[in-house]
Amino acid sequence: MFREAAEAADVVLRQLDRLPGDLARVAKALKRLPHARIVTLARGSSDHAATYAKYLFETRLGVLTASAAPSVSSLYAVRAHFRDTVLLVISQSGKSPDLLAAVDAAKESGACVVAMVNVEESPLASSAHFAIPLCAGDETSVAATKSFIASLAALAQLEAYWADDAGMGAALERLPERLRQAWRLDWGAAVEELRDKDSLYVIGRGLGLAVAQEAALKLKETCAMHAEAFSSAEVRHGPMAIVRRGFPVLAFAQSDETRKDMAALVRDLHAHGAQVLSAGLEDRDSIALPSIGTDPALQPLLHIQAFYRMVNALAIARGSDPDRPQHLSKVTETL
Amino acid sequence: MFREAAEAADVVLRQLDRLPGDLARVAKALKRLPHARIVTLARGSSDHAATYAKYLFETRLGVLTASAAPSVSSLYAVRAHFRDTVLLVISQSGKSPDLLAAVDAAKESGACVVAMVNVEESPLASSAHFAIPLCAGDETSVAATKSFIASLAALAQLEAYWADDAGMGAALERLPERLRQAWRLDWGAAVEELRDKDSLYVIGRGLGLAVAQEAALKLKETCAMHAEAFSSAEVRHGPMAIVRRGFPVLAFAQSDETRKDMAALVRDLHAHGAQVLSAGLEDRDSIALPSIGTDPALQPLLHIQAFYRMVNALAIARGSDPDRPQHLSKVTETL
Repeated sequence: MFREAAEAADVVLRQLDRLPGDLARVAKALKRLPHARIVTLARGSSDHAATYAKYLFETRLGVLTASAAPSVSSLYAVRAHFRDTVLLVISQSGKSPDLLAAVDAAKESGACVVAMVNVEESPLASSAHFAIPLCAGDETSVAATKSFIASLAALAQLEAYWADDAGMGAALERLPERLRQAWRLDWGAAVEELRDKDSLYVIGRGLGLAVAQEAALKLKETCAMHAEAFSSAEVRHGPMAIVRRGFPVLAFAQSDETRKDMAALVRDLHAHGAQVLSAGLEDRDSIALPSIGTDPALQPLLHIQAFYRMVNALAIARGSDPDRPQHLSKVTETL
Repeated sequence: MFREAAEAADVVLRQLDRLPGDLARVAKALKRLPHARIVTLARGSSDHAATYAKYLFETRLGVLTASAAPSVSSLYAVRAHFRDTVLLVISQSGKSPDLLAAVDAAKESGACVVAMVNVEESPLASSAHFAIPLCAGDETSVAATKSFIASLAALAQLEAYWADDAGMGAALERLPERLRQAWRLDWGAAVEELRDKDSLYVIGRGLGLAVAQEAALKLKETCAMHAEAFSSAEVRHGPMAIVRRGFPVLAFAQSDETRKDMAALVRDLHAHGAQVLSAGLEDRDSIALPSIGTDPALQPLLHIQAFYRMVNALAIARGSDPDRPQHLSKVTETL
């Protein structure tokens, strides 16, 4: 896991070299759809990347982005709901049966299928109208790392082409170097605070929600901790009830319109006795984890890169082997 | 909470009397939209009702149903993404600022706004094109109960009118009596098993996922337990890693296409040492909680009705006051 997470910068460099042609073709097709709407389809870490896609495409392109419920196609065998949509499938292995069933349903309804997939010789890559390789190389660690960052980076590149977003394009050129810097950040304070805890919340909002979801899953997989992700709004609608003195909360804030709300939430959590660790906020109510500036939409990628190194160290500090999560295998096939 | 949850059958009786005119009008408007797609907008328990709406409308009507991210309108101030949609807002109080901001954005983009709202004299009810009153009466308990069942029942009624679903219509006529029976079911085994636990998973799939989400939130609010909801597919993509000997799992299964997958998951959980409590399954690997037959799409309402009585008793058994969750107030206004 450590070795693969460290490769993320190289993966993005490869994408910047290999993907422009593919992305330009997909962007051209998307621009031709007058009322495009996106339906994302994914599982696990890839579904967290789909969360990022939703906020990115809705905030920067005004394009409605919905999350598909795979069981509607795979178990309930419904076809019609994908009419007139662009189905965006994100998958490392490209072979889970529920995703393939939904792709078939979407194609039967006339949808355009775009697949972001790491294994280029996979059933998903063959089945899609457009396949965008994630270029992450072999990923053998059960806990996905570089393939998750690769998915977010590919989505950001697609946005840059689709929206002709020159600012994003320029920020992406600098992303590999920023990822290298993020990998070297010292998040040791989080290892100290979380070493003896069993239960925590991870908070993000908007473009940062995806990495909160991803961090919570990694804490489960590598540290067997019960970590659950919430937006800074949703956590106030009930989940706040379990926060008690010393309850740990990890908060990821990027420098955009959601930052003020994140800061207000951290103040509330602190007032309820929570022990808050935050990246991207400078406040008196939390232990600050170091962060690096970039386009706000790319900050979540840097946060998760720094987090991956921390969570690997945390697993080891807790006596777990981050490369051997119990009950899990690399490719999970669900119906 | 106990008293309000016990009123759910009366609430549904009131709906069956009061709502037919309103629902027929909304259904007529929806039938006129050739490419209708629904975007749901809600928070907390109401957002769990929106999950139910997604599976109900996608499986029985083939209509794509997406969950809106309120921050896209309220914080990022994006307007365009609601073009050509039906915005379905579900809210007890009808006054959270983020929901009202999204309603304004949707109206500016030409969306049709349908509000299911309990407080009939609320800003949301005034702002919507169609307002469907939930008829739950005053709800003062912080932990919503009857208003949640009211939301699910109103959605099922809307489906019956929109899809001309006579089977659902007939099952709804019998729903009040079934809810009374469900309220009397003895789920005491769950109180015994969960009394001394702090962390658990709640599992559902398809039409049953919404009540798994709702049960997890109620366990947080009334028992301060860290309960997290997953679908029976998603839990296999990583979260399984924290399951250890004696780890409690509560599983809700309805008698539809998802039941076989739920049963397979329960076998796996059992093999990993989990202590599984299940409603709607008859198997050797879990402690069975009694259940009642009806249209599979209405079974989740009966499961949550029985669960509400159990969770109230569980809170008391753990020394908590289910009517006074810490850090929460009845109306939560988020941005």
